Amino acid sequence: MLKHLKQQVYEANMMLPQYHLVTFTWGNVSGIDRERGLFVIKPSGVPYEELKPEDMVVIDLEGNKVEGDLNPSSDTPTHAELYRRFPDIGGVVHTHSRWATIWAQAGRDIPAYGTTQADYMYGAIPCARDLTREEVERAYELETGRVIASHFEDNGINPNYVPCVLARHHGPFAWGKDAKEAVHNAVVMEEVAMMAWHTEALPQQQTRECLPGYVLEKHFMRKHGPNAYYGQGKK
Amino acid sequence: MLKHLKQQVYEANMMLPQYHLVTFTWGNVSGIDRERGLFVIKPSGVPYEELKPEDMVVIDLEGNKVEGDLNPSSDTPTHAELYRRFPDIGGVVHTHSRWATIWAQAGRDIPAYGTTQADYMYGAIPCARDLTREEVERAYELETGRVIASHFEDNGINPNYVPCVLARHHGPFAWGKDAKEAVHNAVVMEEVAMMAWHTEALPQQQTRECLPGYVLEKHFMRKHGPNAYYGQGKK
Amino acid sequence: MLKHLKQQVYEANMMLPQYHLVTFTWGNVSGIDRERGLFVIKPSGVPYEELKPEDMVVIDLEGNKVEGDLNPSSDTPTHAELYRRFPDIGGVVHTHSRWATIWAQAGRDIPAYGTTQADYMYGAIPCARDLTREEVERAYELETGRVIASHFEDNGINPNYVPCVLARHHGPFAWGKDAKEAVHNAVVMEEVAMMAWHTEALPQQQTRECLPGYVLEKHFMRKHGPNAYYGQGKK
Amino acid sequence: MLKHLKQQVYEANMMLPQYHLVTFTWGNVSGIDRERGLFVIKPSGVPYEELKPEDMVVIDLEGNKVEGDLNPSSDTPTHAELYRRFPDIGGVVHTHSRWATIWAQAGRDIPAYGTTQADYMYGAIPCARDLTREEVERAYELETGRVIASHFEDNGINPNYVPCVLARHHGPFAWGKDAKEAVHNAVVMEEVAMMAWHTEALPQQQTRECLPGYVLEKHFMRKHGPNAYYGQGKK
Repeated sequence: MLKHLKQQVYEANMMLPQYHLVTFTWGNVSGIDRERGLFVIKPSGVPYEELKPEDMVVIDLEGNKVEGDLNPSSDTPTHAELYRRFPDIGGVVHTHSRWATIWAQAGRDIPAYGTTQADYMYGAIPCARDLTREEVERAYELETGRVIASHFEDNGINPNYVPCVLARHHGPFAWGKDAKEAVHNAVVMEEVAMMAWHTEALPQQQTRECLPGYVLEKHFMRKHGPNAYYGQGKK
Repeated sequence: MLKHLKQQVYEANMMLPQYHLVTFTWGNVSGIDRERGLFVIKPSGVPYEELKPEDMVVIDLEGNKVEGDLNPSSDTPTHAELYRRFPDIGGVVHTHSRWATIWAQAGRDIPAYGTTQADYMYGAIPCARDLTREEVERAYELETGRVIASHFEDNGINPNYVPCVLARHHGPFAWGKDAKEAVHNAVVMEEVAMMAWHTEALPQQQTRECLPGYVLEKHFMRKHGPNAYYGQGKK
Repeated sequence: MLKHLKQQVYEANMMLPQYHLVTFTWGNVSGIDRERGLFVIKPSGVPYEELKPEDMVVIDLEGNKVEGDLNPSSDTPTHAELYRRFPDIGGVVHTHSRWATIWAQAGRDIPAYGTTQADYMYGAIPCARDLTREEVERAYELETGRVIASHFEDNGINPNYVPCVLARHHGPFAWGKDAKEAVHNAVVMEEVAMMAWHTEALPQQQTRECLPGYVLEKHFMRKHGPNAYYGQGKK
Repeated sequence: MLKHLKQQVYEANMMLPQYHLVTFTWGNVSGIDRERGLFVIKPSGVPYEELKPEDMVVIDLEGNKVEGDLNPSSDTPTHAELYRRFPDIGGVVHTHSRWATIWAQAGRDIPAYGTTQADYMYGAIPCARDLTREEVERAYELETGRVIASHFEDNGINPNYVPCVLARHHGPFAWGKDAKEAVHNAVVMEEVAMMAWHTEALPQQQTRECLPGYVLEKHFMRKHGPNAYYGQGKK
């Protein structure tokens, strides 16, 4: 079942080593079929060199395995929670990519220092809080998704406008309209994380101003707004 | 029309991924035919792997599309303004390359700390100011070109001697006698941006002196002056 | 003799250039046959491009050469000491990989800032002390192993739970159940060393908290504990 | 003439892009035939992709061209001076490699923070002073060599024990028994420059101690001393 989606999710997973977002098996991508309420995810701990489209595991929105010989990624309950809470997203990715993870370890939002970030994210990339001991013991991976989704709700952040987050002391999650757009956004997050780090750490740079709000608005909206004019148009 | 120039500009665009100056489609190169008053530029949002010489778009100096099936780069009005204001240049490039963008985000000129920079730029690489809200709303991309050109004029910087600039909170632009030299200068800018960053951030480095002016003079002039003796001579 | 083990150790050595852990010949991997009390190690100073499985040198647990035309790695007595003192390990690797060596040069333990480290190491990666002049003059390489093993014993660190160490002013050693797992752990150490460095050096990051202990526990145990559920299970 | 030496020097030049020490044409390697008093050097400004062994230019110890269709590297007088003043060296290399150039721009010696440096250099890598205006105007490239050689003589540094230097605000020079060993040493310098930078810049690292002198002695001498035991012996 879901052969086409498995192929797509497989290809999105293979973008992780291609874009240098993973070491060993430290990443996983999923994609959802909203009509059927099923998503497809990478199996746990399988090296990318050995991965095949048919290895993908099918999961329902409660997080139960529906099809597949292999165990799904241990982060599956996080993906499921994000699909439940963010109804517009079609793909999710988690990695331990270097620069995003550094900001997650530092427990910091990534400020919007430039138009590179504004082209994809309508503001800072938020860093969600650590889980409590109770949350970790109750259902670690599920609670990770809950903490992320609640962070967006509590702070009035629109997940369609800021398609990524840092899980504190852990690493990045990103999403998009499908699995490949999720990975695309993860690549952007890694790039802006690297540049924001060095923007702050330049010693004589004392102001550390974000870009003006009207430039943020302009850049985000010329790509994603109702009158977007970047690219070749959406047919 | 302009088949030869399209090929050149295509090849210059393909240097961007080769020299690791771009992620996805975050860059564009143009080249001009001064006699005809027409320039050729990359189409907007087309991945480099799919780009073909015949995709290049022909634009006149007022910024109007003269030929091409695809939309030109959204930064086309910036290129047009630079061609109008800097009459000696033959090619322009814009990227979001990491190290140059970091300096742009920090809002800092890149000081001339060494002979690597002096071999190509006769002094610091300037960082132009943010656009005002009015400028952004009026004509963002055109005004970007205006702010750059005015920065050079107001500060008495010769664009033939300093072939690049940082657009604040945005990223680098570079130019040259043709499209490939523009990209060449963008590679140099990235390299000196990386080295200048680490020159400043070395903790026990307290003086942060630029190289002496007479060494700057010597290095720039032995390559670009009337008695240049670097290379195999200009035939 | 030990043909299969030589092949394994050869392949583990070839992972060093593949994972960018070595420049020139700056690394060596060994693997042990515990039943026979013999280990196999890379010859000294042989470039990786020229290395062959049959070049591997066989050494007994006292550090004597048992078989091989070439001199073993000059670090052989360190490997022998680690095999004697850490009875559960089956492979050892030493490199001068960049990020781990930086922490060794700074004389600092690598704190556990995130779950990436917690997935493999049950806490900080320790940095062992400098050797004394007497130790260096007596038997430099052997004493290096002694200082490492004593550091673990004196500080109550379980080498099966923290499979790596920094030798001060020198560089990293790592180990595992066999030669390839040792190299795997060396790759992880390099990755977390890079990320910990930048976690600390982010200027506005003032707390520099490690991840909560209960998250460390969760991540380490879900991969390595008795009820581990990461991956496809151990058959 | 010198066909074998030209081939060697060509191959040593081609190591520069292979080891990522150069951007464009920013480097040059030479090798000398001490019996004939002639050295062979890369032509000026020729891209590495187009370089051929027969392009190498033959120069005498006074710096005059003896054979070759192309102009020699503009740094030829520096190479000549180093061959005259350091009678044991057989090859010289100059690059603008990133990390060594950063230290040169900062005007700092690279301290010996670890055994990686001690394996090749018997102490710190010195940074020579800026040239005076008079020196630059008189004979820039020749005086660069003089300033380097005098720095070693005035400070009692043995160029056979410290086979490299930083020219202030400029970049690194390295040498060795032949052209390839010179490049080998330039690679080592780049590696230790990168690691020393980050050793100093780690914020909680306050002591910044070099490695103990007796460890420096041990590591240098086990590779280069009369009783060296690293590698497979010199036959």
